[in-house]
This record gives sequence, C-alpha cells and structure tokens, in this order.
Amino acid sequence: MTISLHAVSAGVFVRMLTNLDAILAKAEANAAERKFNPDVFVTSRLAPDMNPFSFQIQAATDRSKLFVARVTGQAAPVWEDNEKTFAEVRARLGKGLDYHKGIQAAQLDGLEDKMIPLKIRGDDVQWSALDYLNKNAMPNFYFHVTTAYDILRHAGVPIGKRDFTG
Amino acid sequence: MTISLHAVSAGVFVRMLTNLDAILAKAEANAAERKFNPDVFVTSRLAPDMNPFSFQIQAATDRSKLFVARVTGQAAPVWEDNEKTFAEVRARLGKGLDYHKGIQAAQLDGLEDKMIPLKIRGDDVQWSALDYLNKNAMPNFYFHVTTAYDILRHAGVPIGKRDFTG
Repeated sequence: MTISLHAVSAGVFVRMLTNLDAILAKAEANAAERKFNPDVFVTSRLAPDMNPFSFQIQAATDRSKLFVARVTGQAAPVWEDNEKTFAEVRARLGKGLDYHKGIQAAQLDGLEDKMIPLKIRGDDVQWSALDYLNKNAMPNFYFHVTTAYDILRHAGVPIGKRDFTG
Repeated sequence: MTISLHAVSAGVFVRMLTNLDAILAKAEANAAERKFNPDVFVTSRLAPDMNPFSFQIQAATDRSKLFVARVTGQAAPVWEDNEKTFAEVRARLGKGLDYHKGIQAAQLDGLEDKMIPLKIRGDDVQWSALDYLNKNAMPNFYFHVTTAYDILRHAGVPIGKRDFTG
C-alpha cells in the first residue's frame, strides 16, 4: 500500500514518450502521404513567438531526464539540442525514452522526501523530490508532450487523444 | 517516506486549475484590450475537427472529478456541459477547482491499490487507483489543461509557460 516514486515519474515518462514516438511515426507517414518533407514539422509552432516542435521534444526529454538524474544523484546525459531534421528530433525522443527505460524502480523508490537543490526562476531552493515532481517536472513534461501533439494536430496530422493516452 | 495519493492527484488538480484560472483571467483582460468579446474563445480550436476551448475545460474538470469521486466512492457532482460564454466556462473551471479544494488528504490517502471499475475504450476493466491515475486520469487532465492553454496562446493571448506551471 505504498506508491512507488518510479511509478509516478519514470514509469509515466516511459509510457508517454512511447505514445509520443508512435505519434511522430504517424506524422512522418502523413507527410509522405501529403507529399511534403516531414522536416517542415521541426520548426512548426502554434504562435510566431512560441517555441517550435523541435524544442517541445527537447524540453520534454530534458525536463524528465533532469528529474531522474537529480533525484538518483546520477550525472544527466548531455544532449546538444542541435536537431534540425524530423529524423533527428525522433532520435532525440528515442534518447529520452531509452534513458528512462534504463532506470530501475529501486533507483527512485523511497527517495520522495530527498531534498533536491534547484534553481527555480533564478532562486536557489531545495524541494523534496515529490514537490519537484508535482510542481515542476511533471507539469513541464506534460506541457511539452501535449504541445508537441497540439502542433502536429494543428498541422493536420490525423491523430486523436487515444494516440496521446496510448 | 510515503507518497500521499492526495498529493499526486487532487493536490495537482488544485494547483493546475488555479494556474489555469489565472490564465483565463489574462485571456479575458486581453480580449478587452484587443476589443473583442472573450466569448470568441469559447469555440476557438486548433484544428477544425478538434474540440473547442469550452470542451477542454469541461474535460479537464470532468476527468479529474471522476478520478476523485470513483476512488473515494462518492457520487460525482453532475455538471451539464452547457457553457456558452467565457464567463460560464470560467465558472465551470471554478466548480472543478472548488470540488478538489474540498477533498481532504485523508479521503484519498492509502487508496492507491483500491480496484476501480472503469470502462476503457468500451471494455469493462478494473484498474488500481494508481494505474487509473497514471495511465488515464492524469494524462487526460494534463492534455486538456495544456490544450486549453495552447488554444489561448495560438489566439494571441500573452501567456507563457510560467503561467502554466504557476
């Protein structure tokens, strides 16, 4: 009768990034059908002053990676944010997915009260791992995963919420 | 060293709906500045065959309400999905927020393994409360909250991710 920190963090990251990867596969197939280069999606965005699709994938993988690395005390893998093609963006998503798949429940479970040093809006703070998850890592993760979906949906890719929830 | 089910469910719902309410206030102010009726937002959407803004708020409040009601064994309040104006949509968000604010941690904590009868894609299933949260309630909740944000952002409302994360 206890909640595994792994289940509510890395487990969710794996699930949602797996679903998102399948959405990217549909976007790629749809571009082929509509006869345009899927690289067009890389810089697609919902507003001129909003970050593009590539950033959404970079941020979703970064925010989730940093949570796991900081809580487990590992060095986070460094990814360069230099993706220019749709294939590169999809490979970036794959790096995030592989990273989270490699995390064992025992590496995270029980660490919910561990104090994690963070910089939040310029301030140095210490939050429990659970607060970090609920107030920062998970809202940011879902924000970028959903916005990636919304950019593709807005661009006419035939996806539905079932693709998102898996 | 245990994770409260309330903290990872109703606590998150309260936090994110509070942030979303402030975003709606900004949208209303922005419509006044740009001299159009905020009711225009009610039917705004990201694609012609995607659900409008009003639906995103209805679904976010419904999905989160149903999780809490089913897990605690309460009857869920019934809301009619008849919102036509921006003020009505904002009031609907307020109903969801008030509902979650009224839930005490003790009503949810310890129920993570309770089996909940659900209908998932037409199939009758029983999922633990925690699986229901991770695989269904939370992805749906974040999907609709983020998409509500994305619709407003796409419509030119000057909001940023800090408004979303609070």
